[in-house]
Amino acid sequence: MPMRNRLPPDQYINGILAGDRLVLSRAITLIESRLPNDQALAQEVLNGVLTQTGHSIRVGITGVPGVGKSTFIEAFGKYLTGQGHKLAVLAVDPTSQRSGGSLLGDKTRMEQLSVDPNAYIRPSPAGDSLGGVAHRTRETMLLCEAAGFDVILIETVGVGQSETLVHGMVDFFLLLMLAGAGDELQGMKRGIMELADALAITKADGDNRPAADRARVEYQNALHLFPPTGTGWYPPVLTCSATTGDGITDIWQLIQNHQEQMTRNGHRDRRRQEQQLAWFRSHLRRRLESRFFQQAGVSEQLKAMEEQIKDGTLLPVQAVENLLRNI
Amino acid sequence: MPMRNRLPPDQYINGILAGDRLVLSRAITLIESRLPNDQALAQEVLNGVLTQTGHSIRVGITGVPGVGKSTFIEAFGKYLTGQGHKLAVLAVDPTSQRSGGSLLGDKTRMEQLSVDPNAYIRPSPAGDSLGGVAHRTRETMLLCEAAGFDVILIETVGVGQSETLVHGMVDFFLLLMLAGAGDELQGMKRGIMELADALAITKADGDNRPAADRARVEYQNALHLFPPTGTGWYPPVLTCSATTGDGITDIWQLIQNHQEQMTRNGHRDRRRQEQQLAWFRSHLRRRLESRFFQQAGVSEQLKAMEEQIKDGTLLPVQAVENLLRNI
Repeated sequence: MPMRNRLPPDQYINGILAGDRLVLSRAITLIESRLPNDQALAQEVLNGVLTQTGHSIRVGITGVPGVGKSTFIEAFGKYLTGQGHKLAVLAVDPTSQRSGGSLLGDKTRMEQLSVDPNAYIRPSPAGDSLGGVAHRTRETMLLCEAAGFDVILIETVGVGQSETLVHGMVDFFLLLMLAGAGDELQGMKRGIMELADALAITKADGDNRPAADRARVEYQNALHLFPPTGTGWYPPVLTCSATTGDGITDIWQLIQNHQEQMTRNGHRDRRRQEQQLAWFRSHLRRRLESRFFQQAGVSEQLKAMEEQIKDGTLLPVQAVENLLRNI
Repeated sequence: MPMRNRLPPDQYINGILAGDRLVLSRAITLIESRLPNDQALAQEVLNGVLTQTGHSIRVGITGVPGVGKSTFIEAFGKYLTGQGHKLAVLAVDPTSQRSGGSLLGDKTRMEQLSVDPNAYIRPSPAGDSLGGVAHRTRETMLLCEAAGFDVILIETVGVGQSETLVHGMVDFFLLLMLAGAGDELQGMKRGIMELADALAITKADGDNRPAADRARVEYQNALHLFPPTGTGWYPPVLTCSATTGDGITDIWQLIQNHQEQMTRNGHRDRRRQEQQLAWFRSHLRRRLESRFFQQAGVSEQLKAMEEQIKDGTLLPVQAVENLLRNI
């Protein structure tokens, strides 16, 4: 029996392919739903638009809180739509798991972009594991591509594992940095810098300009210490200002150069293929687990075992073997 | 049929409980073996000594390469055995997966400790996943406790995920740091600092002394920015020197204070219980996966599916559902 408010699959598929934003939003709601019927319907819709996906430039954007991600995306996004692009902005947000959405949650933070007919902003789904959020964001990205959006921005915060997840679904990963007071590298994990295809020092305007230029040189030197990526690409460091607009064009030019170079040398396709495989494997792991835990008797046995394990009277390995034997 | 060179379970159990190092080493070899017979025997041995485990102070030690982990452990270890303790030194080493063991692999790096009758040094098992290495190190730790070692040091390098794994098996996590040239925090992930129960600035001797003292103040200030741990413990920063011996006693005193305080307020037991549960859950996940992948037909189907996924003609979620339906 179809759910209330659900359309037949063809209506979703045709609506998305026609670029109907309302239908797109309703299809994304399906993807975010945990109801088995919705999930099956979502897969049918995804399969129906699959051949029309993959044609966008996928850009990940991260940076610690306070770096100015929203203002950057507002300025960068307006520039892109001004250039005739259709832009979708999505988020992978570890904080949304508890609070019900913080990144992009407040669309007023992107005043102009949120009312731009060529931009589509969708906050991170809440109430799911980080892996689950990333999974749904990937599928949402595919729907947006099928709906005709040719640039996808995926925002995340520079804490936790979300950057690795976002890096695993984009063609270009941009790290926003603040010019600080001598300890620029402090707050940012080295691991994230290694993922970046470029760094941009934000708020490079007014009195901040000299500090931003110094930071640019420092970071460029720091990046030289990293091992080469094997793709022939050397991550540059730029400065930009959402207020003056300085550097915004350069960043888009850079992303296009990267795209062109990686398409020519085959690394763009290879990166996407590896991303698809990694997505497949992580989803398989998640499903294997959830299938197991849903079996009759598992949760009761688990509960009893966990008590014994906490008491120190049962070894974890023994517990696992017992559980697998019983189920 | 028992393997060649294998003892009956009782001989392992009695040998370990009697503190026989040769038997202990052979039992650890069982734990590190991937043969099903060996694994079953290892579990029997572990169960036989289980009531005699848990009575040690478990200390994790990490720090970037060059920080002087081996010299620190040599000095710290000699101090401990001099105080009448029996010390086991183990390692969780992500680099050993390829090279066949680097941390502790060259015992000559700990010249004195390696010939100390009250110290037992065991390198990280090679040729396994990092999760597998951590798993085996946990079980090895239990055997060492049963053999009468009352202090366990678990060493790891300050890169990758190994620190999180080691943090998940110890009572006290010590982070060794070098006094650098203004950018002390650079090489070390913020995430690792958040795991530490204390920081020790190494090589605080001779000309290095003033820089080490400055670094101590800097790190102490940095730690103040972190959220409180909820245990009533505020990670202090010390300086030490393996050459002069300065600070070595203080570190041990600190660990004992921590142990006493956490035992009193119940956080030691709670931490261990949570560690046991986390170990159980991660082992269960690993076993579920390996059991699935070993089933007939899975690897062939996976291979075919991965080709389609790379081509972009099959969606990961669809592939997973097909695979689960077929198997």
